[in-house]
Amino acid sequence: MGLIVQKYGGSSLADKERILNVARRIVETKRDGNKVIAIVSAMGKTTDKLIQMAREISEVPPKREMDRLLSTGEQISMSLLAMAIQAMGEKAISLSGPQAGIMTDAYHSKARIKNVAADRLKKELEEDNIIIVAGFQGENADYDITTLGRGGSDTSAVAIAAAVDADLCEIFTDVDGVYSCDPRIVPKAKKLKVVSYDEMLELAILGAKVLQHRSVELAKTHKVAVHVRSSFNHNLGTVVKEDTSMEHNGIITGIAHDFNVAKVVVFGVPDKPGIAARIFGEISKLDINIQMIVQSAQTENMNDIAFTCSIEEAKEAQDALEKVVKEIGARSVVITDNLAKVSIVGAGMMTHTNIASRMFSALAGAGVNIDMISTSEITISVIVESDKCQDAVQALAKEFDLLENK
Amino acid sequence: MGLIVQKYGGSSLADKERILNVARRIVETKRDGNKVIAIVSAMGKTTDKLIQMAREISEVPPKREMDRLLSTGEQISMSLLAMAIQAMGEKAISLSGPQAGIMTDAYHSKARIKNVAADRLKKELEEDNIIIVAGFQGENADYDITTLGRGGSDTSAVAIAAAVDADLCEIFTDVDGVYSCDPRIVPKAKKLKVVSYDEMLELAILGAKVLQHRSVELAKTHKVAVHVRSSFNHNLGTVVKEDTSMEHNGIITGIAHDFNVAKVVVFGVPDKPGIAARIFGEISKLDINIQMIVQSAQTENMNDIAFTCSIEEAKEAQDALEKVVKEIGARSVVITDNLAKVSIVGAGMMTHTNIASRMFSALAGAGVNIDMISTSEITISVIVESDKCQDAVQALAKEFDLLENK
Repeated sequence: MGLIVQKYGGSSLADKERILNVARRIVETKRDGNKVIAIVSAMGKTTDKLIQMAREISEVPPKREMDRLLSTGEQISMSLLAMAIQAMGEKAISLSGPQAGIMTDAYHSKARIKNVAADRLKKELEEDNIIIVAGFQGENADYDITTLGRGGSDTSAVAIAAAVDADLCEIFTDVDGVYSCDPRIVPKAKKLKVVSYDEMLELAILGAKVLQHRSVELAKTHKVAVHVRSSFNHNLGTVVKEDTSMEHNGIITGIAHDFNVAKVVVFGVPDKPGIAARIFGEISKLDINIQMIVQSAQTENMNDIAFTCSIEEAKEAQDALEKVVKEIGARSVVITDNLAKVSIVGAGMMTHTNIASRMFSALAGAGVNIDMISTSEITISVIVESDKCQDAVQALAKEFDLLENK
Repeated sequence: MGLIVQKYGGSSLADKERILNVARRIVETKRDGNKVIAIVSAMGKTTDKLIQMAREISEVPPKREMDRLLSTGEQISMSLLAMAIQAMGEKAISLSGPQAGIMTDAYHSKARIKNVAADRLKKELEEDNIIIVAGFQGENADYDITTLGRGGSDTSAVAIAAAVDADLCEIFTDVDGVYSCDPRIVPKAKKLKVVSYDEMLELAILGAKVLQHRSVELAKTHKVAVHVRSSFNHNLGTVVKEDTSMEHNGIITGIAHDFNVAKVVVFGVPDKPGIAARIFGEISKLDINIQMIVQSAQTENMNDIAFTCSIEEAKEAQDALEKVVKEIGARSVVITDNLAKVSIVGAGMMTHTNIASRMFSALAGAGVNIDMISTSEITISVIVESDKCQDAVQALAKEFDLLENK
């Protein structure tokens, strides 16, 4: 019938039984008359174990070697899965990222895909092989293995789907699809049938773990329809595709939250031109992903400049800024990390004006104090204390009608 | 001072402490003014664990996928070792077999090296990098990973030493060198200072586990001097190099033994031309390594044909021969496997004529019955019952003066 790209995450491949389950699923898809390319992550906690081994050997493992090391995880799962499929009587072949033609830039540990040279993939498809590809990895111009960052296998899958012009890209995971908010926090969260690329992108960036945001970006650029679903049942999941306004579920599609947020505040910054550029110039050298920035005017030509980033990056940022603080005559750099970011996302927001005030009232009603605010076209994010996060998500889910009606 | 190729086996890299130990050893060699290329095996029992995983997934794992799977073991140890060396302040880079330019034929699971394209190795040496190379693996013409068979890392090391014209090839292992016989069976076994390529080759083929025989073959062809020594101390080990008759230690250099021996007997084979060819033609299709062949004349134009091979291969051979037996009108095929092969090896044998009789007398004196015999220019091997193996080796060590004089 068609050419289907599937991606199976680490929890779907955690042990022998699960590998056999995935193999059966792939064989089913093949026997339904499709050609199949399956992209795999490393088994269960393999990647974490490898990272642990590296840290025991070296405090700051060099990134090139770390990429080499981590890339073995997917190569183990791909060969075992290919064996399982062959044992079920279908032709299968495993390919590493480089063999599958995934060419990346040179940034070890967070390389970006430049191109998929799909010759080998096409040859193996012509020979009627089911192809198993190691996700999360590619090769740079020096023929060295690179990795695409956590969750990179999603991006591998979408890139391959685009390169071979697949009819469908299915992302198999351990949940049933994309929910309006995290079902672990809000048990009555609604499963979304359809989400637009833009909404999914914001949800992913703002903390929904179900897809890596770069994979969504790529899917949007190449118009790849992505079906997010569970590898443990046959339920339909969530389709991520182009926005068509008739499909809006409501004004707000979903709520994301993220506990990996720290606030870095530089106190007593002299109010002179170029100072902010000096501060953020230093941060950008570290390749830190800044989320929100707030500058608050203070007395006596002094400002406080605050920004948020991930907790790991906050420590790096602080170390780098200690020097700058002295240089520019600021007072100090302080990190706060018992925080969470709660965001509402919805394309409908563009045509409704009272969303922000409804959000802030709902939070106030739930006794949640707001520390920082940022907005974009289709999102509003607030920083709150981490132990108020659950209350905040629940209040917003109720306010914006994101609960299952049962 | 020079360019040194070192090889570290799995037991030398079994855990974090041992990896750090090897890293220190390599760094020492570098700081003594040498350029270093180190070839590594997989950590400890990694390969066995991967094989176990594969067998749980598939009864007969396909060899291409098995090679892919097993090749990850060396890639893990090489990256961890490169990290450890960098943490000690020296430049280091890890390269997989394909990256190091190890080109092989297409025979998965026992590929042979065709060529080492050493450009990348030379480039990294010029940049003053210590190079860590994954042993045991290469790449075939289809850009697929192949493995070189058990112990293949020794062969990787010698091939690389030849390709870069190294001044020395050191094989680090968990024993102090090559012994006249197995010290676990004969505690007073003598450590050999020098062994010729031919003697080492025979010892390796006949069961001495310390070097893969193909590595010795390769060393002989390319005249690479190989120093076998322990990674746990700084003692001098055994140098394997070209034979110069002045260096003979005695008539017999060493004794090898091997418990992985089975005898396959085809009973009642009609004595007609072409029958032996039919039998061994069938066996050769299976790529089974035949060791000895004995044909004994019987009554009524019938022979028994017996041969030895490894225990795993004997079962395969039997299955294949059942069909042939019917076809040629022979009686039956029977396997015996409680056997051991004991061999004496020595270049001095060529100029002495009474070695065989001394060997058989010594065995008779120790109450050891001989089942089969085979000889070559510098070896005599006998098949004995496995529980007589130790007695046989001890008697021969005494007869041929292979014990330490202390």
